[in-house]
Amino acid sequence: MSSSVFVLTSFCTAQFSSTTQSNAPPPTGTALDGNYFTATRLRNINVNNKGAFANVTAVNVNVFPALSGLGVSNALLVYPPGSVNVPHTHPRGTETLFIIEGTLEVGLIDTSVPVPMLFTQTLHKDDIFVFPRGLVHFQINKSKQTVRAYASFSSTKPGLVSLPRTLFGVNIDIDVLTKSFEVPPSVIKTLSAQQS
Amino acid sequence: MSSSVFVLTSFCTAQFSSTTQSNAPPPTGTALDGNYFTATRLRNINVNNKGAFANVTAVNVNVFPALSGLGVSNALLVYPPGSVNVPHTHPRGTETLFIIEGTLEVGLIDTSVPVPMLFTQTLHKDDIFVFPRGLVHFQINKSKQTVRAYASFSSTKPGLVSLPRTLFGVNIDIDVLTKSFEVPPSVIKTLSAQQS
Amino acid sequence: MSSSVFVLTSFCTAQFSSTTQSNAPPPTGTALDGNYFTATRLRNINVNNKGAFANVTAVNVNVFPALSGLGVSNALLVYPPGSVNVPHTHPRGTETLFIIEGTLEVGLIDTSVPVPMLFTQTLHKDDIFVFPRGLVHFQINKSKQTVRAYASFSSTKPGLVSLPRTLFGVNIDIDVLTKSFEVPPSVIKTLSAQQS
Amino acid sequence: MSSSVFVLTSFCTAQFSSTTQSNAPPPTGTALDGNYFTATRLRNINVNNKGAFANVTAVNVNVFPALSGLGVSNALLVYPPGSVNVPHTHPRGTETLFIIEGTLEVGLIDTSVPVPMLFTQTLHKDDIFVFPRGLVHFQINKSKQTVRAYASFSSTKPGLVSLPRTLFGVNIDIDVLTKSFEVPPSVIKTLSAQQS
Amino acid sequence: MSSSVFVLTSFCTAQFSSTTQSNAPPPTGTALDGNYFTATRLRNINVNNKGAFANVTAVNVNVFPALSGLGVSNALLVYPPGSVNVPHTHPRGTETLFIIEGTLEVGLIDTSVPVPMLFTQTLHKDDIFVFPRGLVHFQINKSKQTVRAYASFSSTKPGLVSLPRTLFGVNIDIDVLTKSFEVPPSVIKTLSAQQS
Amino acid sequence: MSSSVFVLTSFCTAQFSSTTQSNAPPPTGTALDGNYFTATRLRNINVNNKGAFANVTAVNVNVFPALSGLGVSNALLVYPPGSVNVPHTHPRGTETLFIIEGTLEVGLIDTSVPVPMLFTQTLHKDDIFVFPRGLVHFQINKSKQTVRAYASFSSTKPGLVSLPRTLFGVNIDIDVLTKSFEVPPSVIKTLSAQQS
Repeated sequence: MSSSVFVLTSFCTAQFSSTTQSNAPPPTGTALDGNYFTATRLRNINVNNKGAFANVTAVNVNVFPALSGLGVSNALLVYPPGSVNVPHTHPRGTETLFIIEGTLEVGLIDTSVPVPMLFTQTLHKDDIFVFPRGLVHFQINKSKQTVRAYASFSSTKPGLVSLPRTLFGVNIDIDVLTKSFEVPPSVIKTLSAQQS
Repeated sequence: MSSSVFVLTSFCTAQFSSTTQSNAPPPTGTALDGNYFTATRLRNINVNNKGAFANVTAVNVNVFPALSGLGVSNALLVYPPGSVNVPHTHPRGTETLFIIEGTLEVGLIDTSVPVPMLFTQTLHKDDIFVFPRGLVHFQINKSKQTVRAYASFSSTKPGLVSLPRTLFGVNIDIDVLTKSFEVPPSVIKTLSAQQS
Repeated sequence: MSSSVFVLTSFCTAQFSSTTQSNAPPPTGTALDGNYFTATRLRNINVNNKGAFANVTAVNVNVFPALSGLGVSNALLVYPPGSVNVPHTHPRGTETLFIIEGTLEVGLIDTSVPVPMLFTQTLHKDDIFVFPRGLVHFQINKSKQTVRAYASFSSTKPGLVSLPRTLFGVNIDIDVLTKSFEVPPSVIKTLSAQQS
Repeated sequence: MSSSVFVLTSFCTAQFSSTTQSNAPPPTGTALDGNYFTATRLRNINVNNKGAFANVTAVNVNVFPALSGLGVSNALLVYPPGSVNVPHTHPRGTETLFIIEGTLEVGLIDTSVPVPMLFTQTLHKDDIFVFPRGLVHFQINKSKQTVRAYASFSSTKPGLVSLPRTLFGVNIDIDVLTKSFEVPPSVIKTLSAQQS
Repeated sequence: MSSSVFVLTSFCTAQFSSTTQSNAPPPTGTALDGNYFTATRLRNINVNNKGAFANVTAVNVNVFPALSGLGVSNALLVYPPGSVNVPHTHPRGTETLFIIEGTLEVGLIDTSVPVPMLFTQTLHKDDIFVFPRGLVHFQINKSKQTVRAYASFSSTKPGLVSLPRTLFGVNIDIDVLTKSFEVPPSVIKTLSAQQS
Repeated sequence: MSSSVFVLTSFCTAQFSSTTQSNAPPPTGTALDGNYFTATRLRNINVNNKGAFANVTAVNVNVFPALSGLGVSNALLVYPPGSVNVPHTHPRGTETLFIIEGTLEVGLIDTSVPVPMLFTQTLHKDDIFVFPRGLVHFQINKSKQTVRAYASFSSTKPGLVSLPRTLFGVNIDIDVLTKSFEVPPSVIKTLSAQQS
């Protein structure tokens, strides 16, 4: 099972704020009702029909404390035409991605096998693709329509390691990057200029 | 994390059939490609617009072996107008339920607290409700439109204990049932007649 | 292993009260001795020799804080002649039931298989029966003698979902219940009248 | 939860033999019924009223395969007057010990704290004592009556490290033992002679 | 605890080959002795004093089957002067890195916080640095001497996602990469040419 | 995976003191930098070249809070010529032992098999030996040189049960010990005199 927190209770009423993640008890006098188990933040996501990057709205334990200790969370992804969800990993969870509407190209890379492998797929409405825990993956909307998809994670907070920003947006010693990517400093500087 | 199976590998290529669940290795010569990570069984679910019960199509590890060891699975639920998803539990997982279209009434009962509590909610498009592991829950479509919803589970095979059938459809000793529900045998017989 | 809490210590000295379950440290100056590891609440359970329902005394982490994080708890069950332990589940744990004295009828229902199955057994002194996590089970004493049994759980607080009360004692919308059990409202009302 | 094995099924029907522990599927044609979930090996344990050591009968997954993956197991202990259960540990589980009849002296040692501590207790009928995972513990029956007790473990096979035999019955290099216990070889030889 | 495999046994004698990872039992007649618990593959690692990349020799469950189910593994790293260990993640485990000899520069990036952060350190002989599960990290030997370090992992097979190769060595659609890194195709082609 | 703590965050910044192990948040204003992820306490361990017992310096979560929730810890062991690391267990973790320099004799006892077994080995520089969770083990330096070794554990705080002190240094009832070890009180008194 996903969590040991719930060895003790059916659910947790601790209030998490997105900034503090404290385990403080809920405010005295707060009535526990159906609203506690409901997340409404995905209503009316207004996404401009343009944009180079997918819009991701997470419904994880930070914003939906009822998930605490229960081992699952979700996100809504909206991809304007031509947009990408950049290569990234979730360090603490597997993701399944379900297509609500539209057609989406997805990719998954496994470099733990002797021969590195890229797995790709064109997903249609109602298809599901699984991105195993910790592996690099990405999506691109090559269609003319906005795509909507819904992600399920095997963790209440799977985390996100966005690779362009992680590699080129935090001022890693240029010597590390030129040697690792085996390119001249000018290439690294071009990449870094976009992530600052 | 949800699973210890993946201490060893990124993903599992064992072939599970829905009947045997064997851990046999994949047939030799089967190329591993993007199809392995894709589930298409939710395409074109044809649900008659009538019916007393919700139609549930699971995408768990039995039908989607790429989920093996990864701690998450899904299901598509289609509710004709007036239909119910009968009171049930998932013995091995928490569920989050996302409304793709329509308006749905949901209920969750927690009897592990000193005072038993029923939590209800009216869910609209894009809302999420969480049913913590092992607790009894149900849904009913009180609207005139078909409702579509998508479930995420914290287990690759959360299981299902459908309570009407479990209690009244397996020929439990009538003495147990009359004493437990504190009703005459005639009431139990009426209930049992519907679940045979 | 059952718990990650004890990755850090041999045992936990936090004081839990049955109402607050706080993780506050023990009162300063409280000497830790053998009493901390001892539960005496099962001594001299006085159970009237009559009664329709089994008497259950739990020794879980709420009343025996030394169990905290250790993944096991217990309960003593006393069944007057003719009494039942109503159909129920433990959402967070498996139970083994050991017969201290007497003869007891037990039942376990598995509805996660394609064909629902009821498993029954007559247990004698010193027999053990296992009720896997989350599955519905019940017991009835059909003998003329009081039966005493002792339960072991794979959780420090396995929880309890008592089905008659959960289904018919919390005012679930009657429309849900009539449609789920496929019986007229009068039957539901008869059932509900007993659980209020 | 105690086990990830049961992420997939309610219970396991693999047949384990006490010698091979294979995961082979059950013999074809074996009907699954209530007997599968029942252990009867504790019936009629005939223990001579004399003897220096407690008699322990385990009901673990080796002899009761229905426990497989469910995270709990049990044992019956019978202590003739004057007998001991020698200092030992269970490397893979916590134990709770319940007194069925008689009065028993128990001890638990925690040497992971800065100051080593011995915790002792006199247990009476219906008392429970908890021995946290991996810690050294023992029991002695100082009474004139046979004591019967029942153990619950947080593992389907907690293991047993019997310390007299482990330290002095496997021919550890005498140099290691004399240096570790800081006694002359003659003392080690006296101890070893009893454990061969 | 790290693993549920060892709920049943102290250790596992299944023979894993580095290619098949089968769970087949050990060859009949193979005597189990101290060699089974010993890994000698780190003896006499001959590393040329030159080279652009660190030399990594893993002692994981593939090559040391006695680790099976025990939740820990190791690796020896030798860094010629000027060499790097390229930015990478371990999808299934935390790493601690211990410096056996020399002075090493290390970096860790956490992009799951609101503001991305790079943490760096100069490690000397006998220092330990921790790289939490799934996060990107790297090392570079800026000294004139070869550095030797020893890694401990919280998994018997933590996996490796080498980012230069994963991003630019598996022929990801150039449209995805140019949009993700926001650079012209020529830059992507320069990067890809080095990873083929 | 080793820990459920990190379902929520990449790493934990709670400050643990070696005495209180509190979960209090870090002091406000403390900047998080590379030092947080670095342990330097193994620098310049001054071990006298003489001594009967190995010198062990643990780098566990008590002294290195960045390990919190990450499922791994370490220790440095220095063995003067002729010294022993006395028979002991780690109740909450497996250990791998890596020889940095010198030659060391190690022993592991498994008494959970039907026939008790002692496994021994002579380890040389760069060898690794695995001591599975909870099993008794020891080391002795029979060489003329000081041996240095480095331990990896599958837990952030594996615990230590030192058997000579646990058995003979806490005043266990002499009746228990004479019966368990089957030796006269004089032998127990000799053993106890060394452990007080």
